[in-house]
Amino acid sequence: MATEFTAQAYSAVELIRIKRDGGPLDDAQITWLIEAYTDGHVADEQMSAMAMAILFRGLDDRELATWTQAMIDTGVRLDFSGLNRPTSDKHSTGGVGDKITLPLAPLVAACGVAVPQLSGRGLGHTGGTLDKMESIPGWRASLNNDEMLRQLDEVGAVICAAGDGLARADKKLYALRDVTGTVEAIPLIASSIMSKKIAEGTGALVLDVKVGSGAFMKDLADARELAHRMVALGKAADVKTVALLTDMSTPLGLTAGNALEVKESVEVLAGGGPADVVELTLALATEMLRAAGSEADPEKALKDGSAMDVWQRMVRAQGGDPDAELPVARHTDDVLAESDGILTTLDAMAVGVAAWRLGAGRARKEDPVQAGAGIVMHAKPGDRVSKGQPLLTLHTDTPDAFERAREALAGGIEIGEQAAERSPLLIDRID
Amino acid sequence: MATEFTAQAYSAVELIRIKRDGGPLDDAQITWLIEAYTDGHVADEQMSAMAMAILFRGLDDRELATWTQAMIDTGVRLDFSGLNRPTSDKHSTGGVGDKITLPLAPLVAACGVAVPQLSGRGLGHTGGTLDKMESIPGWRASLNNDEMLRQLDEVGAVICAAGDGLARADKKLYALRDVTGTVEAIPLIASSIMSKKIAEGTGALVLDVKVGSGAFMKDLADARELAHRMVALGKAADVKTVALLTDMSTPLGLTAGNALEVKESVEVLAGGGPADVVELTLALATEMLRAAGSEADPEKALKDGSAMDVWQRMVRAQGGDPDAELPVARHTDDVLAESDGILTTLDAMAVGVAAWRLGAGRARKEDPVQAGAGIVMHAKPGDRVSKGQPLLTLHTDTPDAFERAREALAGGIEIGEQAAERSPLLIDRID
Repeated sequence: MATEFTAQAYSAVELIRIKRDGGPLDDAQITWLIEAYTDGHVADEQMSAMAMAILFRGLDDRELATWTQAMIDTGVRLDFSGLNRPTSDKHSTGGVGDKITLPLAPLVAACGVAVPQLSGRGLGHTGGTLDKMESIPGWRASLNNDEMLRQLDEVGAVICAAGDGLARADKKLYALRDVTGTVEAIPLIASSIMSKKIAEGTGALVLDVKVGSGAFMKDLADARELAHRMVALGKAADVKTVALLTDMSTPLGLTAGNALEVKESVEVLAGGGPADVVELTLALATEMLRAAGSEADPEKALKDGSAMDVWQRMVRAQGGDPDAELPVARHTDDVLAESDGILTTLDAMAVGVAAWRLGAGRARKEDPVQAGAGIVMHAKPGDRVSKGQPLLTLHTDTPDAFERAREALAGGIEIGEQAAERSPLLIDRID
Repeated sequence: MATEFTAQAYSAVELIRIKRDGGPLDDAQITWLIEAYTDGHVADEQMSAMAMAILFRGLDDRELATWTQAMIDTGVRLDFSGLNRPTSDKHSTGGVGDKITLPLAPLVAACGVAVPQLSGRGLGHTGGTLDKMESIPGWRASLNNDEMLRQLDEVGAVICAAGDGLARADKKLYALRDVTGTVEAIPLIASSIMSKKIAEGTGALVLDVKVGSGAFMKDLADARELAHRMVALGKAADVKTVALLTDMSTPLGLTAGNALEVKESVEVLAGGGPADVVELTLALATEMLRAAGSEADPEKALKDGSAMDVWQRMVRAQGGDPDAELPVARHTDDVLAESDGILTTLDAMAVGVAAWRLGAGRARKEDPVQAGAGIVMHAKPGDRVSKGQPLLTLHTDTPDAFERAREALAGGIEIGEQAAERSPLLIDRID
């Protein structure tokens, strides 16, 4: 703990009033608030009122840096400074078909930079990296700190579950925000992400901030603000941080679902895979390497098989069999093109919700997911399609879900006379 | 209850989001929210976030009327329609030296209009009507509904404690707002006051909305908005409602404290008393009578002793002895004028806090108050004073309090060369 806790140091209601009325909170007030909330001396109803006040009034850069540091100080902070190479990590704000971590972590490790990737599970329409990895037979997400350090040293890449010890305040505050309509406060999003990433101990960090229908941020200005604030927090904590703003109006790649996305990731590691997944993987790998001071060429590591080699060693180190058959859903159903023309829209949110309903995602964090469920896309926006051809194949173990998945897709697929103007995949870079 | 409670009718977080984003809540949503919160199905942390969102986004007239009605529907509603005369009540938003209810209730009753005054206790720098009445030996604040009705029938005026049965939601919501920095939301202030006053069953209502340093509303525009919203709520509930905006930059009358204010109130009922107390009592009595359809002249009832007669019967009906000696504090101390000149400032907040520290008020609702403690003022703003003359006499049973009372007064007393421009006592009338 950075400072000693004093129960009577401040009055929570006084601090709420200051923020409510637009004034700044000083560093000692913020530190006290986060510690006292984590320890239960500030009540949930006070912190939710504070979170709503922050949603309307914001936190300035100094307040946000102090807030984030106070959250870090409620837990342990990992330290990889003893490793024999630099570390670099990536965080995505979440999207549909976003399997990028899977090829990216071994690719960067193959170039000589260690990747300590603490990941989460999926919720709602977005998938989670751990859910995807767990579709590999035998693979386990939980490692203790010693196992993680040893794997980073020996393999260079680890994808595992974050322990409870990092930024304890974040877990409690996030659960509170989730039920009080305060998730959307940009400074609180930034501090939630960055407190965990900074506590994780990475030396460099690349943020993939998604924008579009399937992203948490639908609006470019909001996404840009979030990116700027996270980059500032990283720099304030001496983590070399860069953000890319990337498009999430349509799914990444041709698959959404757990085992389906592992399969596509392995194709990328084998030198193939969809162009957009390859493009984004290489762009993020380049940023991660540069931020860690490396000039290595990630394209080479894809071509020469060294990235695939790290992938296989990484999977095996956590009990998985990279050569095992992946689970396949028991039922499939095709969604057909209703006319001839150009596919103009394949909406990320519609595909994400449909995949969730097929069993690839979960509504509550304790729900199970189906390893084989999801969606395979046979066309992407800009492609010419013919009436009656399969556009999507739906996969599930629970065929009752087909109807609700089709309902989710209604309005999310449009075929027109000519290709619509599309956002580039890489929208902007912020450092 | 107006509607049947359905636990799953809405999601609290969805309703918070609607209000947070500036949208209106529909009537069914508001009714559900208030019922579900009162019954514990919506959590405190959700209601506090909603209250903060309302503080920023407001409630429109339709939302506020529904909100207030839903609060009324969580409790009982009294009914005085069987009385042999009309009813009229007054509510003050609270100030320093505001003893007006004491002479006002018997005065209006003496003019033939019954006054069912449900009052509260003091908190912080403002005194409470029940605390003042309880300084009368033997007087008791608690009446059941039958006793209240009988006293209204036989005496015409009752001042008593509100039972727990009125607007149950308000008690819970007010306690929550108090610890979450959301007391200041004007629609929530309006609905808190009006839900209790409408549930109380009065046919007409006059609101004394205080403005100035010693008032809850420091700002005229805020006070005006609160008055407008409360008048609209009264009308929507078929209660004839009028508001007066009155000055609370300096205390009312020459006393602040419990027994001290009873004594001053009796002076007014005897045809004397400070000019400002008499002026405001007559102005409010006239409004209460007119709102109840009476053309009676309250000045006559002060002069002919009929108001005093009702006062004595009202006190006796609740066990009090109107002829008993009132409690007197054991210690007094004078505050002297520091120069010759005109008293330009006698700040209501400073005097209120000093009286509270002397023992006339309380910090928490379970704390006791001293009957004899308080402040007697020997000069008011505009009066000429001489260096060394007593400006105030401090009264307390706990002489250690003198120093902290003097600290509270520091800066609250100013003597100048010429009289400052002063706000009139009666600032505006809103109906």
